Formats: sequence, C-alpha cells, structure tokens
Amino acid sequence: MERFTVISSDCHAGLPAADYRDYVDGKFRDAFDMALPIQKQMTDKAEQTFLIKEINDQWRAGNEDRLSGAWDYEQRLRVLNGDGIAGEIIFVDGITEQNAPPFGAGLSLPTKNIMPELQWAGARAHNRWLSELCARNPARHFGVGVCPLLWDIDEAVREVRWAAENGVGGLLIPLFTGEFPSYHHKRYDPFWQACEDTGTIVCLHSGAGPMEQIFGEDFPMSDLSEYPGAMGIYVSEVFFWTYRPLIFMLWGGVFERFPRLKCSITETGQGWLLPPMFRMLDHHYYDTQFSAKLGDYRSHLSMSPVEYFRRNCAIGASCMPRSDAEMRDQIGIEQMMWGSDYPHPEGSWPFTADQMISTFKGLPEDEIAAMLGGNAIEFYGFDQGALDTVAAEVGPLRSDFVA
Amino acid sequence: MERFTVISSDCHAGLPAADYRDYVDGKFRDAFDMALPIQKQMTDKAEQTFLIKEINDQWRAGNEDRLSGAWDYEQRLRVLNGDGIAGEIIFVDGITEQNAPPFGAGLSLPTKNIMPELQWAGARAHNRWLSELCARNPARHFGVGVCPLLWDIDEAVREVRWAAENGVGGLLIPLFTGEFPSYHHKRYDPFWQACEDTGTIVCLHSGAGPMEQIFGEDFPMSDLSEYPGAMGIYVSEVFFWTYRPLIFMLWGGVFERFPRLKCSITETGQGWLLPPMFRMLDHHYYDTQFSAKLGDYRSHLSMSPVEYFRRNCAIGASCMPRSDAEMRDQIGIEQMMWGSDYPHPEGSWPFTADQMISTFKGLPEDEIAAMLGGNAIEFYGFDQGALDTVAAEVGPLRSDFVA
Repeated sequence: MERFTVISSDCHAGLPAADYRDYVDGKFRDAFDMALPIQKQMTDKAEQTFLIKEINDQWRAGNEDRLSGAWDYEQRLRVLNGDGIAGEIIFVDGITEQNAPPFGAGLSLPTKNIMPELQWAGARAHNRWLSELCARNPARHFGVGVCPLLWDIDEAVREVRWAAENGVGGLLIPLFTGEFPSYHHKRYDPFWQACEDTGTIVCLHSGAGPMEQIFGEDFPMSDLSEYPGAMGIYVSEVFFWTYRPLIFMLWGGVFERFPRLKCSITETGQGWLLPPMFRMLDHHYYDTQFSAKLGDYRSHLSMSPVEYFRRNCAIGASCMPRSDAEMRDQIGIEQMMWGSDYPHPEGSWPFTADQMISTFKGLPEDEIAAMLGGNAIEFYGFDQGALDTVAAEVGPLRSDFVA
Repeated sequence: MERFTVISSDCHAGLPAADYRDYVDGKFRDAFDMALPIQKQMTDKAEQTFLIKEINDQWRAGNEDRLSGAWDYEQRLRVLNGDGIAGEIIFVDGITEQNAPPFGAGLSLPTKNIMPELQWAGARAHNRWLSELCARNPARHFGVGVCPLLWDIDEAVREVRWAAENGVGGLLIPLFTGEFPSYHHKRYDPFWQACEDTGTIVCLHSGAGPMEQIFGEDFPMSDLSEYPGAMGIYVSEVFFWTYRPLIFMLWGGVFERFPRLKCSITETGQGWLLPPMFRMLDHHYYDTQFSAKLGDYRSHLSMSPVEYFRRNCAIGASCMPRSDAEMRDQIGIEQMMWGSDYPHPEGSWPFTADQMISTFKGLPEDEIAAMLGGNAIEFYGFDQGALDTVAAEVGPLRSDFVA
C-alpha cells in the first residue's frame, strides 16, 4: 500500500439542538419544547462568558460548510476525505458547536439540576440519531453513544444491549459520579459485565470539570471578575478529571473481574502526563515502604494497574504533537491512537495532512501506521480490508512521511 | 563548619487527645468532654478499617518513647538530636498517632459534619499549645498553626495576628474548600494580605482526600468490601489534592496581588510530579493554540504560574529519595527542603542519618547544604547563627557525604 489507513480516534457529531426533537420519545416532546429555549440561552451565556464569542464567530466565518458536517453526512464525508481519514470514532458534540443533545445528555453528563428520566431521553435521542449516522457506512463510522450510567444500572445495561443491536459500538460514561459511588464500587459490575459480553467499548472523554468550584456557584451565569484565572485552572485540571474514573477502575479491580472489558480515554494529553502517572501507579503498587501503615490494597489484583492499562485500555490522542510521538515508547506505542478532533476548533482539520506529517515524519513506518490507524482498527474492531479500500483513495501518501 | 545544619521541613506534634482539654477555651470544655470519647471511637475505627492496627501496633512496640516526643519536649529533643536535626517545621499531628486536636481541627480540616465555632476552638487549643512548645527554643522550632480559614475570613485574619504575636510562624489552611469558593476567589484576599503583612507562611500539607468518594458515604464506618482498591486510589490521588489549592492560587493571581506572600507545600512527591506539572502550567500559559476558544485567562498575571511558584513557594520534601535529589535541577533546587516526617511511621527517623547519606552522597556540597537546611532557613526565616551552633553539636558530618 502506498497510503496510510488513518483513523481519527476523536471526532464529534451532533444535530442542531432543535433537530433532536424528532428523535426524542413522544412522551418527552412537550418537555423538549419547553427546554429548548432554555438550552439555547444557557449555551449563548456560556459562550459569552467562558468561550469568547468573538473568537468563535471569527473562526466560524468561512467554516460554516465544514462545521455543518457535525450533522450533514455529505459535508462530513468531504471533510474526512479531505483530511485523509478513512475511519472515525464519533463522540457526542460539545457546547462550542451548539449541537449538544437535550436534557443535559452531552459530553459532560452533569448530575446536578438534572432529571434522570429526561437525561436518559436526551441520551436515547442522540443514540438513535447516531445509529442512523453510522449505518450510512458502518465500515467508516464507529459511534460512541451517551450513557447516563449513574441513576439506574439496569437501565444502563438495557442501553448496552440496545447499542450493540443498533451498531453503536461504544458508550460514553460520566466522568463525575456526583452523589453516586465512584467506579470502584461493585454496583457498576452488571454494566461492565454487559459491556464485556457485547464487546461494547467503555469511553471516557475530557471536557467535564467541577465547574461550580472553578467558575462559581452560578455557573454559567457567574460574575467571573470574582474568580480570576478560572479558565487557567479549568485547563490545568481537565485531564486529571478524565483519568480519575480510570484510576478508580484500575485499582478497583474492574479489569481483574472483567478481563475482556475495553476502555478508551480520549483527548487527555499524553506525553507530559502518562509516564509520570505510570511511575506513580507502579510506585504505589510495588513499593510499600511509604504505605505499609495503609494496609492491603493490592491482593485483589493479579496484575499492576499499569499492566491492566496496557492490556485493556487505549488512548485517543487528539492532535498528537510531535513531542508525544517522540515519547511513544514511554507512553506505550500500542495504546496511542491519533485523532483530528473534527469539528472542534482546537482540532487539526482542515489542515490535518500537514499536521500529521509534522508529527510523524521520519519515524519508523510501521509505528506511524500503528499510531495513525492500526491501533484504533484493532482496539475498536474496524474491518481492516474495507478501510484499506477507502484509504487507497483518500489516505495520506506514505512517501510524504519519509524524512 | 564540619557539619551540615539540617532543618526538617516536615515534623509533627500533638497532644494525646485528652490533654487538649486544658488548652480549650472554658466555654467549650463541656463540648470537649462530650466529643472526646467519640473522637477516640472514630480514631480506633479508622485505624482498624483503613490503617491496619496490627501493623501500627507492631511498629509502635519499642518506639513508645520516641513516639511520645509528639508532645514530650525532652523526648522530642532526643529524637531530633539523634537524627542530626538542628531545626524543624512543626505541623499538627494525624490520626495514626492519635494526637489530633479536638473538634476536627487536625491535618484534614474537614468541612462536613463540623461546627465552625468548635473547629475554631480546637484549632486555637492546638495553636496555644504549639506556641508554648516553640517558646521552649524558638531558634529550633517553627510552628505551623491550624487555621480553619473557610468559615469566616475576619476570624482567620485575627488568628494570623494572634499567631504572629505568639511565635507561631505559619498557618495550615484546608486543602478542600467544600461548599465555599476555592482559593482563586477574592474573598480570601484579606487573609493573604494579613499573612503577607505579618510574614506568616501559608502552609499546605498532604493528607486530606475526598474520603466519602473513595471509602464510601459512611467513612470511616464503611464496609470496604464494596470499595475494592480504595486505599490505592487514595494514595494515587493524595498529592493532587495537595497541589490543587496552590494551582488555584497561582492562576488566581494571589501572588500577583501579594508578591511577598509565601506558601509552602509539604509531603507531596516531587520528582515524578513537579516537572510534568510545570510543563503543563507553562503549556497553558504560553501556548494558546489549544485554548484560543477559551478566552483570556492570563492578562491579570505579569508572570507565569511557574514563575510565581519559583518566587513565592517552597517544597517540604519528606524523606526525599535519591531520585528526587538527582532531579533537583528539573524540580528547582532552590525550592527543595528535606524533611524527616517525625513522628510518622513513613518518616526516616530514627534512621535519618543513613537515609540522608544515601539520598545526597556525592552531590555538590553547597547543594546538599541548601536542600538539607539552607533553603528552609531562608524560606522560613530561621536564625542561621543560632542553628549553626546547634548543628555544631548534632549535625551530620559533611565528610560522610563525600562519595
């Protein structure tokens, strides 16, 4: 093959808020109609206060067509093909793009001021639409549905089955468990079991944070002048919050009890974060000098937390910088899956081709192939042959990556 | 000088719980008498469930005299001198040693199920006793009082003044702010101002964690079998919780508004944690590619968060391992202050002499001198001459550190 088969491990899709109406269960339509203007108001306010509308408007201008690929399939294909991407992992969309599902069923899955039944209705609306999107070409699109796991585990187990039967291969779970037990608690075992049984990937994606602590109790309506530097704090912590649920799962023995369960963690930073995190976990697993007084917290694990991570997890590395590619041996090359973060403004699109080359140029060809696509194909279970056929048309030329 | 002048930047002291009675304000004595048996019961339960009583009992046996140095001054001096330590920073004690102040005024300073007036009463009782302890020899003992900062800032400001007038040079503040705003909020400005004005050091010390999330709602009475690996999670996160308040202060511009304010952060890990944390903070301060959409969160700062850290902060590095000493240039040698963690079981005592040598042997003599004592002398404002006199008797021989 003269071209690489590229998977973007981090893409997003979502309908304009009003268009979710047709996908919401009939009995929730009235609630939907009432909630819609409020959702719009909150999104506008959040963008004004926290996301600097001017910057976003400037960036949107001229990008409208490509941004509509968040919901318009033909536009989406055009961007993916233009970026050289054969296959993609599709997460729900965020507030920047104003395409979040209704009733708080977006990327952050909050637990405060939320009605569980409605959040589930919003999640199901998104998952139905996502299932249709992926069905356009299942070989290229791997959908990650939304799963408000916390409220009712039986309900979540039913959603796992629905997802598996409807071509939705992964489920996004909340990073924050609010008043519910964290993910080391055994109440979640039926959910892990169902995911393992159906081969459904459990997905963590960055974005959520303890917004009230950082931006004030009235978030997103707070007066930020009382909270200087809040956004700096948010970005400094955001990756910790993404890894935290996985730390609970690793120590909690989730991958001991469910050895075939898979978990991906996406857009969370790699090089500066993972090698020290691995050293820290190994230290606490292997060295007991500093923690003898804390008793036994290891004997339920037959492997170290890092070994579970290597066996059961993979990293969706959005817009991977070259420094991360150079640290691939410390991060774990088999876990690293490149991603474009389309259609988010921090993503590499529509300049992905250049960005890829500057990240990978001169590295061993088989390692580039693994990080650009091979790892994701294996982890998420894509059909390699079908994707190679697509890549033969759209993929980046291997010769461009030779130093 | 043929000996190093050593400061332990991390020591602890506390009375046996019942002995705090005499130091509690008269009007809280009845409450003290009621709370004492409950405190004892909670401590016992915590030790049984979380700290493995057998291990602690085994470790205590034969150490009783040295452990009583937590409150007995002559015993304390014997251990310090035996360890070669000329001066020490004294924090409040933890539950392992059963010497915590009453009313939740210990190292963790919880905000849940706490009566503010009582927590203040417990803090004041400890601070009074600590003031007496330090007065035995102010040249050698730097006391860090307990300050339940959150409830009432004016009250905290009064405690800063009391501390300054009574030979208590630092104040420990809570790592968790509970329902109160975090430390970037301007409500804390009068406290920072008072600390800056009086030269009082703001101190963060590891230990507190979100115990209910990790060990269950009924902590410390929970059934841990439902929360496998909880202690592994606790130790994996505990340093994050210690640094978190400082991250809020750095981005919040606290050291911009109060440029002479000093903050120490103690027993939090160094080598595996700080260099990546610095890279992360620099990335978010200097590189805007990934955060343009997040608006301006830097213009209130005239320096980067890392530069404030270098100017205003120092690290109490308990039982510093050799790997940290070898990474001193990446960590910042001017911030590193060795500590023995006496009388905690994870500390280096009573084998400090050997531990020091294995950490520092063969390094440049002036750098060893800085990390073992010089940095702490400058940061905490000890009297160098008085300490050198003590060290001439008890300090470790410089010749033992030559490779």
